Amino acid sequence: MQNVDDWLEALASDSAAPGGGSAAALMVATGAALVEMVCGLTLGNEKFRDVEPLMTHAREKARGLRATADGLREEDSHAYDAVMAAYRLPKGTAEEKAARGAGIQAALRVATEVPLRSVVAGVDVLDLAASVVESVNPNAISDAGAGALAARAGAEASALNVRINLLAIKDPAYVTMQKAALEALLARAATTTDQVLSAARLAIGG
Amino acid sequence: MQNVDDWLEALASDSAAPGGGSAAALMVATGAALVEMVCGLTLGNEKFRDVEPLMTHAREKARGLRATADGLREEDSHAYDAVMAAYRLPKGTAEEKAARGAGIQAALRVATEVPLRSVVAGVDVLDLAASVVESVNPNAISDAGAGALAARAGAEASALNVRINLLAIKDPAYVTMQKAALEALLARAATTTDQVLSAARLAIGG
Repeated sequence: MQNVDDWLEALASDSAAPGGGSAAALMVATGAALVEMVCGLTLGNEKFRDVEPLMTHAREKARGLRATADGLREEDSHAYDAVMAAYRLPKGTAEEKAARGAGIQAALRVATEVPLRSVVAGVDVLDLAASVVESVNPNAISDAGAGALAARAGAEASALNVRINLLAIKDPAYVTMQKAALEALLARAATTTDQVLSAARLAIGG
Repeated sequence: MQNVDDWLEALASDSAAPGGGSAAALMVATGAALVEMVCGLTLGNEKFRDVEPLMTHAREKARGLRATADGLREEDSHAYDAVMAAYRLPKGTAEEKAARGAGIQAALRVATEVPLRSVVAGVDVLDLAASVVESVNPNAISDAGAGALAARAGAEASALNVRINLLAIKDPAYVTMQKAALEALLARAATTTDQVLSAARLAIGG
């Protein structure tokens, strides 16, 4: 368990892991945490009793997404380490070369799929934020907007990590499939982010 | 010193502080840390010796911005607490009412200026990222992009916090001035983010 300052220090260091993928997952987790808080600030208030079931449900879902994203923060570093380890495999004989190549490709797939799961988690956080934004305590509307911005940035930054790992994957069908998944997810993220930010801007200007 | 999971837990809790403002400052700090890392991954490489002075300078500046943003993460919670404390001041007599009103206005100004400083720090991180993105180690280009996305989300989320606090400030000239500052800063953030992301997308697609 690292404290926040130490985590930032590890992120800033010359070691590539933790890197952009882990930072992206943390942003998704931050977005989820803000959705939880906004639901909690609404639940605590008599004025919003009508939306209690919605808020209770959304808070639980956000809590799960926070745990998922926080887990992906660590998984992303492991996936990167596994790619580096595969590149270090021996390549003296033809057999070794083949084994190394296969090991690299397998590790790259994992290093693609982990940030893709962060994109999915980011989109899920945004769906959740959009589902509550019209009903939340107006005092917390800037927090809902901040949560959406964090989740969108996390999804987009994760997408960059998916793409850089796809560059070295030698299965065109796999690459095409993953790129199509990304496009669809990012389009959805853009729509839901706009929805949340429009509601926030309507309330507070900007 | 809180660990990352505990910090997220505190963010997610029903207490409004830490909230969106602190989360936004953490995103700016995350962006700064990624710029530091990208500079470090470029400095460690013979191939990029030409850009050593640029990278050394940028890394130092990013390190300073990380410290600034990480400090604002805590300052934002204190500023919020001070506003709440001012609202709890006695309002029995006319004198008490006047003192309370003045206390609230003073606390709201601080609660506006702290996130405005986060916006400035976010814009500074983006300027720095834009100044190095054409020269960094291409293996770290997705991290440069992730850093820009984090800094932009941090700046935009901080701006929401500035705006929600401006709503209750009763000095129109002050409000107009702060809004104008925000507009200029966010326009700059949009431009530099596009610059960094274009360079990243050129390298890795998307």
